[in-house]
Amino acid sequence: MSDPAIRPFAISCGDPAGIGPEIIVKSWLARDKAALHPFFVVGNPADFRSFSDVELAVIEDPGAAATAFGQALPILKIDSGEAVEPGQASTESAQRSLHALEIATGMTKSGDAGAIVTAPVSKTQLYRAGFRYPGQTEFVSERCGIARENAVMMLAGPSLKVIPMTTHVPLKDVPGLLTQQLITARAKAAKKAMIRNFGILEPRIAIAGLNPHAGEDGSLGLEEKDVMQPAIEALRAEGVNMSDPMSADTMFHEEARASYDVALCPYHDQALIPLKTLHFYDGVNMTLGLPLVRTSPDHGTAFNIAGQGRADPRSMIAAIQMAETAVRNRQKYDN
Amino acid sequence: MSDPAIRPFAISCGDPAGIGPEIIVKSWLARDKAALHPFFVVGNPADFRSFSDVELAVIEDPGAAATAFGQALPILKIDSGEAVEPGQASTESAQRSLHALEIATGMTKSGDAGAIVTAPVSKTQLYRAGFRYPGQTEFVSERCGIARENAVMMLAGPSLKVIPMTTHVPLKDVPGLLTQQLITARAKAAKKAMIRNFGILEPRIAIAGLNPHAGEDGSLGLEEKDVMQPAIEALRAEGVNMSDPMSADTMFHEEARASYDVALCPYHDQALIPLKTLHFYDGVNMTLGLPLVRTSPDHGTAFNIAGQGRADPRSMIAAIQMAETAVRNRQKYDN
Repeated sequence: MSDPAIRPFAISCGDPAGIGPEIIVKSWLARDKAALHPFFVVGNPADFRSFSDVELAVIEDPGAAATAFGQALPILKIDSGEAVEPGQASTESAQRSLHALEIATGMTKSGDAGAIVTAPVSKTQLYRAGFRYPGQTEFVSERCGIARENAVMMLAGPSLKVIPMTTHVPLKDVPGLLTQQLITARAKAAKKAMIRNFGILEPRIAIAGLNPHAGEDGSLGLEEKDVMQPAIEALRAEGVNMSDPMSADTMFHEEARASYDVALCPYHDQALIPLKTLHFYDGVNMTLGLPLVRTSPDHGTAFNIAGQGRADPRSMIAAIQMAETAVRNRQKYDN
Repeated sequence: MSDPAIRPFAISCGDPAGIGPEIIVKSWLARDKAALHPFFVVGNPADFRSFSDVELAVIEDPGAAATAFGQALPILKIDSGEAVEPGQASTESAQRSLHALEIATGMTKSGDAGAIVTAPVSKTQLYRAGFRYPGQTEFVSERCGIARENAVMMLAGPSLKVIPMTTHVPLKDVPGLLTQQLITARAKAAKKAMIRNFGILEPRIAIAGLNPHAGEDGSLGLEEKDVMQPAIEALRAEGVNMSDPMSADTMFHEEARASYDVALCPYHDQALIPLKTLHFYDGVNMTLGLPLVRTSPDHGTAFNIAGQGRADPRSMIAAIQMAETAVRNRQKYDN
C-alpha cells in the first residue's frame, strides 16, 4: 500500500525522442503489479498521445496526481509544441527534457513532489542547447544548494550497491584523484546513505583496491598502503565499518557480495562492470548527499529503439521503487 | 568417450599444502560424470594418502595412466618425503610443487602427456625457494622456448572468455603499456587461439576501451582514438574481426556477451571482474601462444581451507575439460 502521507513522485520525461515516454507509460501500466507509489510525469502530453493503451490525466497541481493515478497517467504539462519524432534527437527535444527536469526538481525541492525520478537525457543534445552541467546529477545537486563534488553517484541492483569514487575522468587521472580526503568523504556518504535510504543501521562498507590484487602487498602498486589504508584506519577510528582494500576481481561473486552492504570502488569501470554485468536491466542510479530523493534508471535514451515498443521498463520501475524505499526510510531515520 | 589417440594429461600437484591434492582427487572421483579424459598426477603419493575414498596407482610411465585411470588415480611419484601438513605453507611444499611442475611440463613438451593442467602454487613460498619466474605461466612458456611476453593469459568460463592485455602491473602503468604493438599481438593471439583451441573459425573479437565509456569520443581520454583505433583499423585490414573500443561497463551482460567470442581488455580488473563475477567457481586459466596445451583452475592454493574437505573442484574439472577441447581442436585445425 502506498502511503498517502508521501506526496506523488515527479518523473521528468527525459528526452522525449528517446525511450523515456515509453518506459514511463510501461511503468504506469505496471503500477499495480509493481506496487508503485503514485507518480506524475512532467512533460508534453503530445509526446505521450501515441501510446494507445494509456489514458492521460493532464494536471496542473501535483496534488491532483494521487487521485488520478489509478485511472490515468497524470501529466503535468510543460510545453504545447507538437510531439517530437521518436529516435530523432534534436535541440528541441533536449530543451523539452531540460524544462521537465527544472520543473520536476523545483517541485521536489519545494515538497510538492515526494521524490524525483529522472528519465534519460541526451547530453550531446543538451550541450548543444546550452546546458552547462556535466549531467542531470550536477544540475539537481546545484539546484539543491549542494556542491557538485558532494553529490555522490550510487548504482544499485537487487544484489549489489556500488559507489565509484571517481567517475567520468580518464583512467590515467584516477591514481592522482584517489586521495584520503576523497575516500573519507565517499565512505561517510556511503554510511549515511545506507542508514537513511535503506535502513541499514550498521552498514558494512567494502572498498576495492586500485591495483590488481589490491596491490599484492605493495608489489603491484603502493596506493593501497600509502593512501587507502591510512584513510581506512581513520574511518574505523570514527566508527565506520570498512574492509581493507579488497582484490576487485574476487569481490563481486555471490558469496563475496553477501559480506558487505555497499562497495566503494576507486574508478568507474571497477564499479560499473560488476553492477551492469549483474543488473543490466534493473540497475538504478541514486544520487547520494542531497536533501531530496533522486533516482534514475541506469541506462540512456536509446534513440535507436525509440518508438518501437521494445524498451524495457524494469530499470525505471526499480528506480521508482527505490525512491519510495528511500523516502520511507528517511521519514524514519532522518531527524 | 575419451580419445585413446590423445595421451593422458599431466596434472602437476601444485602446492601440496594447499587444496591441490583435494581438487585433483575430487576431479578423479567425478571422472565418469564429467567425462574427463584420463590424467595422472605428478606428485608425492604421501600427500594423497589421507583421502580414503580414492585408490592410488603409482606409475612410472605416463603410458600406464590410461589403463589405470578407471580404477585408481594414477600418480607419477616425484618425491619420497613425508606428507606435508595441509594449510602449512612451507619452502618444502613449494619445492615439491616446483618439482611437479618441471616434470609435468617436460612430459607434456616431449609428447608423453597430452596436455598439462597445473594446480595452484604459492608464489610467496616459491620465491623463498628461489623460483625466479613471476608465475607458472612464465615457467612453462620459457621451457617451451616461448618468450614471456608472447605467453598470453586467457580466462574462460562457460559464457565468457577474456584476455587482459596487461596483467600484474600497477594501474598507473597501464596507459603507458597499452601500445599499438601490444594490442596487435594480443588480438592476433586471440584470433589464433579461438581457431586452434575452440574451433571458432571466424572469431569475433571485442575490445574494451581503456577509459570510462570508451573515452566518450575523446572527452574522457584519448587512448581510444590515438592508440586503440589505429591498431584496430590495421588489424581489420589483415582480416581480424575486431569491434571498436567498447564501453567496458555495458559489454558483459548476457545479451552483450552473445555478440563476441572473446573480449580483449586493457587491464587486469576490467577482464577479471566480469569473469569472476560470473564464473567464480568454474573459471579456467589457459595460456595462449604455447606449442602445448596448458590450463589451470582460476583460483589459488586456499591454504585457509586445505585439509578440510571443503574445496570446490569445479574449476579444476573445467580446466581438464577445456584442455581436452583444445587438444582435439588442435588436431583438427593446426596446419
